Amino acid sequence: MGMTMTQKILAAHANLKEVVARQLIEANLDLVLGNDITTPVAIKEFEKISSQDVFDCSKVVIVPDHFTPNKDIKAAEQCKCVKTFAYDKNIEHYFEVGEMGIEHALLPEKGLVVPGDVVIGADSHTCTYGALGAFSTGIGSTDMAAGMATGKAWFKVPDAIKFILKGQPSHFVSGKDIILHIIGMIGVDGALYKSMEFTGEGLKYLSMDSRLSMANMAIEAGAKNGIFEVDEVTLEYVKEHSSKPYTVYKADEDAVYEQVIEIDLSTIRPTVAYPHLPENTKTIDEVEEIKIDQVVIGSCTNGRIEDLRMAREVMKGKKVAKGVRVIVIPGTQNIYLQAIKEGIVEDLVTAGCVVSTPTCGPCLGGHMGILAAGERCVATTNRNFIGRMGHVESEIYLASPAVAAASAICGYIANPEQV
Amino acid sequence: MGMTMTQKILAAHANLKEVVARQLIEANLDLVLGNDITTPVAIKEFEKISSQDVFDCSKVVIVPDHFTPNKDIKAAEQCKCVKTFAYDKNIEHYFEVGEMGIEHALLPEKGLVVPGDVVIGADSHTCTYGALGAFSTGIGSTDMAAGMATGKAWFKVPDAIKFILKGQPSHFVSGKDIILHIIGMIGVDGALYKSMEFTGEGLKYLSMDSRLSMANMAIEAGAKNGIFEVDEVTLEYVKEHSSKPYTVYKADEDAVYEQVIEIDLSTIRPTVAYPHLPENTKTIDEVEEIKIDQVVIGSCTNGRIEDLRMAREVMKGKKVAKGVRVIVIPGTQNIYLQAIKEGIVEDLVTAGCVVSTPTCGPCLGGHMGILAAGERCVATTNRNFIGRMGHVESEIYLASPAVAAASAICGYIANPEQV
Repeated sequence: MGMTMTQKILAAHANLKEVVARQLIEANLDLVLGNDITTPVAIKEFEKISSQDVFDCSKVVIVPDHFTPNKDIKAAEQCKCVKTFAYDKNIEHYFEVGEMGIEHALLPEKGLVVPGDVVIGADSHTCTYGALGAFSTGIGSTDMAAGMATGKAWFKVPDAIKFILKGQPSHFVSGKDIILHIIGMIGVDGALYKSMEFTGEGLKYLSMDSRLSMANMAIEAGAKNGIFEVDEVTLEYVKEHSSKPYTVYKADEDAVYEQVIEIDLSTIRPTVAYPHLPENTKTIDEVEEIKIDQVVIGSCTNGRIEDLRMAREVMKGKKVAKGVRVIVIPGTQNIYLQAIKEGIVEDLVTAGCVVSTPTCGPCLGGHMGILAAGERCVATTNRNFIGRMGHVESEIYLASPAVAAASAICGYIANPEQV
Repeated sequence: MGMTMTQKILAAHANLKEVVARQLIEANLDLVLGNDITTPVAIKEFEKISSQDVFDCSKVVIVPDHFTPNKDIKAAEQCKCVKTFAYDKNIEHYFEVGEMGIEHALLPEKGLVVPGDVVIGADSHTCTYGALGAFSTGIGSTDMAAGMATGKAWFKVPDAIKFILKGQPSHFVSGKDIILHIIGMIGVDGALYKSMEFTGEGLKYLSMDSRLSMANMAIEAGAKNGIFEVDEVTLEYVKEHSSKPYTVYKADEDAVYEQVIEIDLSTIRPTVAYPHLPENTKTIDEVEEIKIDQVVIGSCTNGRIEDLRMAREVMKGKKVAKGVRVIVIPGTQNIYLQAIKEGIVEDLVTAGCVVSTPTCGPCLGGHMGILAAGERCVATTNRNFIGRMGHVESEIYLASPAVAAASAICGYIANPEQV
């Protein structure tokens, strides 16, 4: 029986010829990831099961990105715990403030993930790396601990939904709009414990940044992972960023999918997810005039260079609406540097934005832009749950950088085509 | 009997021909300042005494700079309270995130303070504006409320210490070293409720940024205010930044000073204040090799363009020491923009610094770089009290941007002359 992309990667990492959906397997891990929130818990668990080194100090990655630069004493203690562990265990890929970025923006940039990898991360958006043709999924701190100790993890092989993308999206439609459109269509549990596999001729119109944004939000449809067929765009990206060897796994012709969904990218409109679920989508044409207090452009979903370029394209030469706070968060130090070199930061600051150090910050209600009761935010982040960005009576509207930038200028949720 | 600079300003604002030290007077205010921590308290008090407008909506300044971009829900609620008040009362100088900066860097830059002004601010470092030849002092939130309502405040006219500066400081010695040197000499209560009046031919070697840094820390010697004689440097600065009318007050020849202290700037060495008081100073030549975990370059004391230029001069082409977090915080959005245009941000990020949005943040243990137990920080901030930047078992070493930058590169407190 044919296997999906995901199934082929898992089979290879379990040293099995074949796996089928729902089979339990133990797979070898190419990378184990943790951040400043989840790693301290994992360290405690690790120390219960091992006084030894981690399984491979080049395959554990620790990125203190959530509450850094340290938001408070608790965050400082968490980061100190993580740093001490990283130094003690000779973790090669521990990223200090100043070298770092948001984990899911950083790892691809640093070439730490390549096609065919199996990656677990103690962060739900670890599914991001599926954009590179890797199997990558979020796990809990306990699994992170076991992964660090053994280099292995148990998985139930997922069923899959195949998304065949075709057509070319219009200028202001990016990966974020496409994934919001899909989540709007299938719902936040529409892909529960399944692979979302993206393929089709439309892929060629999707940059790596757009793909990362889409795979990132697979979890918001409940998926175990999102994964993109490897193509020229992938190989180009890998060539530029990594020297790691890699294997390209292609789905079998007769792979079994629970569902096959065709998406015509040319028909997708800029899309916004209303509070309080990512599935509450409307096209920009259906959005009424909703006044906003804050805009956040950043996060593991949309803090990459293309996102900042788009924000600049929309905002350059204009001014942020009075009373609106606009917080731009480049995903990594490198992205920030690139944005400075391209004049993007200058244009955004001139327009009236502030530009933060790389951090997950506001996305999870951590810091750097928390909302008061009654405040509304347009955010390029990935979750708009009740209270996610602050007060339970605040509201988050998820959108692309283009829509977020247009909204920043207008002071209400706005169509970038009309700004 | 002759009057000091401060006494002459106060007399004029009290419509009196003459005042003497320790006299109680009521003075007219040119500016009343508050931030996101102190203004909400002042608003409550204001509402008890008045349902009217503020005395002059062009003379109240509100700058949400301490916990912004909103650190948490409480900060968000504070900022919302302040914003609502500012809009409701038509406060002309309310600065939203994106327009703003650290209050004491922002007000001079925006031309809101000029020589001869009387300014009160619900923030202890309001004494900063003495650099411009204004009388400027920190008060509590209740006084801020009364000031907003009436445009007046009661003062006890201060005694004064005259500092006669002479000689030219060496390249790596800036205002910060001079004021630390002075505090080391007279102690943290050495100028208790007095004016520190700075004059002498050495003034001409002190840029406005150096003067602002010195006046800023007058409070760290217990002073009511610090004030600089107005000279060409002042007038040039005012011409560039402000269109407000101003009056230059010069101390009378026979003004009475409690003490006159001569300082030869050419003999001052880069100076560091050890934990846990600003008076615990050592010259850089006396400092042993003290390993550090963090460097902060910023704050109302040292987040101005010259400070960033100096940090760049020391760090350019070098790399931050492994394991050290270096947080650079431009004082205002304009300073940040200028630093980008001059290539400073690029050089600092390349060296391994992160660059924050303008905020008081770490200086008061607010956010953006809080210390864990046992951690040590070299900071260009103004206070190194126990627990000021985080855990009570952390340590802060106060220094100039040059020393902080040198320390960032070395990983221990270092002499910029030797990096």
